[in-house]
Amino acid sequence: MNRAVYFDNNGTTALNPKVLQAMLPYLSQQQGNATSRHIFGRAARNAVDQAREQVADAVGAHPSQVIFTGGGTEADNLAITGVANALGSGKIAISNIEHPAVSRPALALKWQGWAVEQIATNQYGQVEKNTLETVLQKQVDMVSIMLANNETGVIQDIAALGEIARQHKVYMHTDAVQALGKIPVDFADLNVHAMTLSSHKINGPQGAGALILDKRIDIRPVLYGGGQEKGLRSGSENIAAIVGFGAACQLIAAEQPARHAALLGLRQRLEQGLSTLGAVIFASDAERLPNTSFFAFDGIEGETLVMALDRQGFAVASGSACSSDSTEPSHVLLAMGVQPDLARGAIRVSLGNDNDIHEVDAFLQALEIELSRLRKLTAVAI
Amino acid sequence: MNRAVYFDNNGTTALNPKVLQAMLPYLSQQQGNATSRHIFGRAARNAVDQAREQVADAVGAHPSQVIFTGGGTEADNLAITGVANALGSGKIAISNIEHPAVSRPALALKWQGWAVEQIATNQYGQVEKNTLETVLQKQVDMVSIMLANNETGVIQDIAALGEIARQHKVYMHTDAVQALGKIPVDFADLNVHAMTLSSHKINGPQGAGALILDKRIDIRPVLYGGGQEKGLRSGSENIAAIVGFGAACQLIAAEQPARHAALLGLRQRLEQGLSTLGAVIFASDAERLPNTSFFAFDGIEGETLVMALDRQGFAVASGSACSSDSTEPSHVLLAMGVQPDLARGAIRVSLGNDNDIHEVDAFLQALEIELSRLRKLTAVAI
Repeated sequence: MNRAVYFDNNGTTALNPKVLQAMLPYLSQQQGNATSRHIFGRAARNAVDQAREQVADAVGAHPSQVIFTGGGTEADNLAITGVANALGSGKIAISNIEHPAVSRPALALKWQGWAVEQIATNQYGQVEKNTLETVLQKQVDMVSIMLANNETGVIQDIAALGEIARQHKVYMHTDAVQALGKIPVDFADLNVHAMTLSSHKINGPQGAGALILDKRIDIRPVLYGGGQEKGLRSGSENIAAIVGFGAACQLIAAEQPARHAALLGLRQRLEQGLSTLGAVIFASDAERLPNTSFFAFDGIEGETLVMALDRQGFAVASGSACSSDSTEPSHVLLAMGVQPDLARGAIRVSLGNDNDIHEVDAFLQALEIELSRLRKLTAVAI
Repeated sequence: MNRAVYFDNNGTTALNPKVLQAMLPYLSQQQGNATSRHIFGRAARNAVDQAREQVADAVGAHPSQVIFTGGGTEADNLAITGVANALGSGKIAISNIEHPAVSRPALALKWQGWAVEQIATNQYGQVEKNTLETVLQKQVDMVSIMLANNETGVIQDIAALGEIARQHKVYMHTDAVQALGKIPVDFADLNVHAMTLSSHKINGPQGAGALILDKRIDIRPVLYGGGQEKGLRSGSENIAAIVGFGAACQLIAAEQPARHAALLGLRQRLEQGLSTLGAVIFASDAERLPNTSFFAFDGIEGETLVMALDRQGFAVASGSACSSDSTEPSHVLLAMGVQPDLARGAIRVSLGNDNDIHEVDAFLQALEIELSRLRKLTAVAI
């Protein structure tokens, strides 16, 4: 593959070479099944236990609160469907800017008789405290609000919202997949009962995630079988991926403050350039993840620009890269009140730990060229 | 780790070095998210598509019938829960020797109002044709019967049973996790609507599996989200694991006949030695996987023998290695009419492609020594 510049780190990240080194013993020697009692099984069990501590340490949780899953989507499903099944029926309230990994399992609960309410957000896509307070005046059994949005990078005040849910004695979940590694994430401080993490968004391997869960919460499995993870997630553990997830979490704990500053510096340079080129940068006044910039140019279709930039060797996203193909404008932007025509122009740059200032500058140059080319082509203008 | 001899290949297998080579590019360069449209995303998509063809080719299926999952347990859950949720309510019949990855999701359907019937098996743990015929005389909506048992290795005549289910127009699933790679597995020949496969049982990586599905079957997802796998299995694809699963399937297609003969030769030597030592070999008269030997010595507890052999450097299993800790005698042996006392003595040797005749002979020697030692210890005798 031609060495294109990768600016889609909210989609997935490159595996950190140190993480790969931690994983390789579990890929190149005899693998163990962590439920086996012989020496191979015990080695696998020890590796999982160590990773459980590393993940817990990265988010201020106790290892016993970590339920390993096959990824963030599965953890979100467990947090929503697993708790809903234990409750029986009721009402779930989710913000209107959730990732499909939260909104789709929530909507699927309708088939089981649940009511689903969308919580309105402000112009930055944030749930305001009084909005949640009003929603919880009526009977609500579960709430899910993400910590940081995958498209805009906007951060919510989950600690304050969690406090409101707690006052109303309502189970609250947060999807922290995009926040982990980019800002400090502390389970206890967030006042939630459950929190989703994903390995491949933090330079760990694909195929591992976790639900951090308050053990007082009654929950049923989504996947039944051999009873792994205290019966809450059956299936032979993916030892190498879990080990890699743990190693990636350990690196975060050591490097997060430095990463934050470096990413923020790059993004400021990027956004200065974008503004000069006439971009509308969404939610630029809100508190955002340091690596994420979501923007549009009036009259330029986002998908077309993504393809043009791809040909120039820059990998960026239009809308959510975690969803299947769709030409609908971003539901996040629509929720924020952005006009559909402008929303269709949205493209996302999500920086990673491997990016540098030269890549940002080269991107801005390429963007300027493509913009002037596209603006001459009436065929693709909206 | 001391190089112990690994005889627990039905639990998990060593990753084939060729498979690791196929995976490494996806672990050491920028990973792509297969839903992204840029060059990295397209490379990931191409890799998944190639693996889909390799998996399909290994089992005589069409690539469009392959739904990738995070493993065999998840595929079993999809086959049971996903179809049950599409049907609404009804009755599921499963054999009484199923792996928990099938029996537990089936039992969980009771909460949704489903009836669950256990299909009796004969002294070999096989469902007989007239038994299934009788079960299907009453209204049954789903059937699941495994192709080869993980503990005994006994193979079922799924093609004949599938034909009966077809005549009754009943959806039928088979868990072929243990069969793949050890005997020929052809989806069309088996007359089933759905079949589960797992990567880590065939010298592929942990963290990948597949449900092979007749596309006419109405099914709902178990995991909701970004809509990957045609909406049937959301969550960012684990590209490296899927690539490894495909590579492992390709190796099977090339090597399965030779593997079968080699494993059978080793097992014959093993079982001759076991018989000399006085072992009861379960279902030894039945058609079995070539690598699996499940046996017991009267008066010797299986768990104790497993631990003793582990200290001697031999990794074997007592009962199912895929389940969490349990001291209950094997449900498979009880279903076959084995007395509980003898069943508590059961240990399983499951050979792999890396084992050789010297390991088998050394094992028999160690076993003889441990048996005579344990027989002197009345404290551990049952």
